[in-house]
Amino acid sequence: MKTWIYAALLCCGMVSALPAVAQFAKPEDAIKYRKSAMFLMNNHMGRLGAMVNGRVPFDAKAAAENAEVVLALSKLPFDAYGPGTDKGDTRAKPELWAEMEKFKASAAKLQDDAGKLSLATKGGNLTAIKAAYGETANNCKSCHDAYRKD
Amino acid sequence: MKTWIYAALLCCGMVSALPAVAQFAKPEDAIKYRKSAMFLMNNHMGRLGAMVNGRVPFDAKAAAENAEVVLALSKLPFDAYGPGTDKGDTRAKPELWAEMEKFKASAAKLQDDAGKLSLATKGGNLTAIKAAYGETANNCKSCHDAYRKD
Repeated sequence: MKTWIYAALLCCGMVSALPAVAQFAKPEDAIKYRKSAMFLMNNHMGRLGAMVNGRVPFDAKAAAENAEVVLALSKLPFDAYGPGTDKGDTRAKPELWAEMEKFKASAAKLQDDAGKLSLATKGGNLTAIKAAYGETANNCKSCHDAYRKD
Repeated sequence: MKTWIYAALLCCGMVSALPAVAQFAKPEDAIKYRKSAMFLMNNHMGRLGAMVNGRVPFDAKAAAENAEVVLALSKLPFDAYGPGTDKGDTRAKPELWAEMEKFKASAAKLQDDAGKLSLATKGGNLTAIKAAYGETANNCKSCHDAYRKD
């Protein structure tokens, strides 16, 4: 059955247009994939946050490196919420699938925020970095509040 | 104790020079971090491999995107093998810590390989991409053979 669907997708040239279907062998893989990306993103946001909030000394090079990692990671998780990935080892709420367009818009905004954050760290102005960091972190939080169980 | 060590590191300005110590609150976090990065890297190498081996049609844009993700991820895991991270939910062998310099050299080669792979995908020449992919994949395998339990 799976092979048949895949062959059909290949014939239609739709494989790269359907990453969530084609790129994960099993729903569990998609869940593990998005959780891995989120965990890493959270770690690097935390490293930036420690600098932004003055818990560790500001280091322009480290800030730029961390923001670049956040930007690269921000592109990963959101194709991994395909059909069948709402069950299993996940804290995602059913609302996420019910409001997929809104969720995807938040994802697009995150990628935009992360791009601005990366740019700000390259500029090296701490006030601008703080603002861009705050915008990004707020987006993380509002999406978690809406779509992730406690 | 932890606070004291951290304060000492701050005083010495060593925080950013010692990422493995400073960036993870607990050894479990470092283990989860490196496993997350490896899992994602493996996924994107798999997507490239499917194209390189002809299981899915070659798509230059997708190849370049995947190689860029592999390159970004290749920089992450190797600071997460610090002291105390040899125990717990890990398949890493004791040899990894016994041969840390050799391990770090393999990591540096992986990052170099991934850089060449990313460049090759931007060139769009499938023969060059295959060669760069093979070099990178061989490096993954030889390091796993040496330092990861089955």
